[in-house]
Amino acid sequence: MARYQVIFAYDGTCFKGSQRQAKSRTVQAELERALRRLGWSGQSILMAGRTDKGVHASGQVAAFDLDWRDTSEAFCHALNSHLSSDIAIRSVTNVPADFHPRFDATSRRYRYRLFCQPVRDPLRERFAWRVWPLLDGDILISPPQALLGTHDFAAFGSPPRRGGSTQRTIMQAFWQAQGDEWLFEVQADAFLYRMVRRLVYLQVAAGQGRLPVDAIAKALVSRIDLSAGIAPASGLTLMEVTYPHIAGLEQPG
Amino acid sequence: MARYQVIFAYDGTCFKGSQRQAKSRTVQAELERALRRLGWSGQSILMAGRTDKGVHASGQVAAFDLDWRDTSEAFCHALNSHLSSDIAIRSVTNVPADFHPRFDATSRRYRYRLFCQPVRDPLRERFAWRVWPLLDGDILISPPQALLGTHDFAAFGSPPRRGGSTQRTIMQAFWQAQGDEWLFEVQADAFLYRMVRRLVYLQVAAGQGRLPVDAIAKALVSRIDLSAGIAPASGLTLMEVTYPHIAGLEQPG
Repeated sequence: MARYQVIFAYDGTCFKGSQRQAKSRTVQAELERALRRLGWSGQSILMAGRTDKGVHASGQVAAFDLDWRDTSEAFCHALNSHLSSDIAIRSVTNVPADFHPRFDATSRRYRYRLFCQPVRDPLRERFAWRVWPLLDGDILISPPQALLGTHDFAAFGSPPRRGGSTQRTIMQAFWQAQGDEWLFEVQADAFLYRMVRRLVYLQVAAGQGRLPVDAIAKALVSRIDLSAGIAPASGLTLMEVTYPHIAGLEQPG
Repeated sequence: MARYQVIFAYDGTCFKGSQRQAKSRTVQAELERALRRLGWSGQSILMAGRTDKGVHASGQVAAFDLDWRDTSEAFCHALNSHLSSDIAIRSVTNVPADFHPRFDATSRRYRYRLFCQPVRDPLRERFAWRVWPLLDGDILISPPQALLGTHDFAAFGSPPRRGGSTQRTIMQAFWQAQGDEWLFEVQADAFLYRMVRRLVYLQVAAGQGRLPVDAIAKALVSRIDLSAGIAPASGLTLMEVTYPHIAGLEQPG
């Protein structure tokens, strides 16, 4: 028996979120179902974090214990053959027996993708938010600066456990233009539930002139945000979960 | 009663092709269903061309006669509100009563998108072909040159009518690298069925060293192609149909 870390991707559109729930199709349930086909008999796999219904991932992380006699590559191939087309294992790594994908993680990185267009676009809206009226790109540039560092993000989301801390540290936050699209890249030690989508919503509302540019900075101080808006799940992707260098845990390139 | 031209987009994944068929969900049937909600009572709309099951479009064209009292913008909005999320009208234009989207078209432009990666990618494979082993990009560059001009493409596809001409004129054909993706852009007066996907398959097979680089050039002369391979529909998108400048027909930008 050895512990394995898997890095995996999914199109969140047809999942009711990542975490196992009775009677719903979730990422965790789908992965556990495939693992059972390979002889896994655990109670529950360990996941790096929860993604909400409709949110995608290109670098979600899970871990579990399994008795596997072949190579990691063979394991990756076998596991993928039991998974549906909207979820895929990208890599499998042998890790120390006490590795925990959630508690050992040092940061999470998310990307939010949007584009400005007056009419619907069926080729893009599965993975991006269509925003209209047009955004003022200059206004998108400044709010991320206010987010950097350690703050109480109570105004922007809720903690995993009721009464848990709402303090988080954002290491990186910026907007990048790509053709007619805007990408919001944000990395933090951890995120509150709905936090990225709430932050994107507020910045877009400011970019459209519907909210003052300093709305985020003010809510960081007051801990109260009066707008209940949230950006749709379809634009959000968990890109990466990072870990400290642990002997025996080699992050694949 | 006036004739309207609509330019529209669709995610072809959940359609059994563009052309109406009994008992199948097709693009034409979906559009006709929505038009009936707006008072259209014709037998059949006119389409610029057929796309196969699973092929996408960002600039497909259709035309029909309708008695509509409001603006084109209002019509576009109303029609979109009756269409499912995987199909969307991009523009509506009033055209001369004898406009025919298929017979008046002077060219069609397609894009084929692929990427090279050893493992499945659920965030991309809906709209691209995952190719492995790696392609030799240099080899992709030369075959499109052989395609340019007027040739008998009998080796690469079949005509819409049995016994119809298999001669077509390719005006533009090139590969473009974009990050780890390759885009094949091709424009012709018209295409045979399956022609773009067959041409992509042959070029990829050459790029992987499984076929000689001159396989396409030779099949253009011999009119026989011995490989039956075809690239998957998911990577193909009908980008645009072009028309000569007709008084009263203004192509929206």
